[in-house]
Amino acid sequence: MPKVSESHRELRRRQILDGARRAFSAHGYFGTNVAMLEDAIGLSRGAIFNYYGSKLDLFVALYEEDRRRLVELWIEHGFEALVRHIGEDDPEWLGIYLEVGRMLRTDDALRERWRELAVETQAPVFEWYRVLRETREIRDDVPLEQLLRFIGLIVDGLVLQRGARFPVDVDGTLELVRELLAPK
Amino acid sequence: MPKVSESHRELRRRQILDGARRAFSAHGYFGTNVAMLEDAIGLSRGAIFNYYGSKLDLFVALYEEDRRRLVELWIEHGFEALVRHIGEDDPEWLGIYLEVGRMLRTDDALRERWRELAVETQAPVFEWYRVLRETREIRDDVPLEQLLRFIGLIVDGLVLQRGARFPVDVDGTLELVRELLAPK
Repeated sequence: MPKVSESHRELRRRQILDGARRAFSAHGYFGTNVAMLEDAIGLSRGAIFNYYGSKLDLFVALYEEDRRRLVELWIEHGFEALVRHIGEDDPEWLGIYLEVGRMLRTDDALRERWRELAVETQAPVFEWYRVLRETREIRDDVPLEQLLRFIGLIVDGLVLQRGARFPVDVDGTLELVRELLAPK
Repeated sequence: MPKVSESHRELRRRQILDGARRAFSAHGYFGTNVAMLEDAIGLSRGAIFNYYGSKLDLFVALYEEDRRRLVELWIEHGFEALVRHIGEDDPEWLGIYLEVGRMLRTDDALRERWRELAVETQAPVFEWYRVLRETREIRDDVPLEQLLRFIGLIVDGLVLQRGARFPVDVDGTLELVRELLAPK
């Protein structure tokens, strides 16, 4: 295939993801139907589903993109930047992920996909903390996995509270996380 | 009103809440319509809405009941029992609360109601920790509110992860919470 075709596909994919994000943000996952996706994206359902097989595939692609961006933020700017982003920037998408909670609960295939993505995106975080541990910047008296799972709970707690648009105490949270991570 | 009438009303209320819980558990909040509620409860919509004004009122009443029960468990049996309950018993309702995340996000009146209930049910927890603090069973070097908000994040993180039916490390979590709370 000529190169222009691939870059055309890339642009189309971007157009589809951006439009779908607007539609899901405005109406929620379950409240968005195919006609709304067509409107927001500006393409026919045939064209859309040529790139993403289903509404769920589209949603998962958005989740994947967000998840990778969050992990990047975490690794490049640190946990504090991540917490501030979730706690203060009020990212629109947060509420949407809560919506699929029930789907994850009952859809084994989706949960497996979610889990694989989690493992894949967690790998660089784990690697980064392993270095921090070796350079004695964080504690090494508890297993790293236990520590990161605990931090994961805090992140998900922030997502739940901010997703529902409750205020959170970012500074108070960070103070206790810093204490938790500090070398003993 | 004679006493029998009040106890009859109480029984009806119980019947309605139990049936509604079954329906919401099976189909989710958004997937449950009034006909499904009638089926699960065994009463007509007229009778049901005579006790609870709307599907949302019913849902909020269930949430309220659960929230009070969790707080009771927390106060009577401690935080570890609460975490074990959420982390290991896999309570069916967890997934349902994730579903309303988006509603809380966009419905200010509902969010206000939720917040008032949170404040009301948190009061005895706060009181209990105040005592633990005075008796030196927990640390007193950070504000109690900061500590309880942090624990609230962990609880909500557990709810999010268990609601989606992901496994959580209950013992590893408790070990770090114990350390967090310990007098310094």
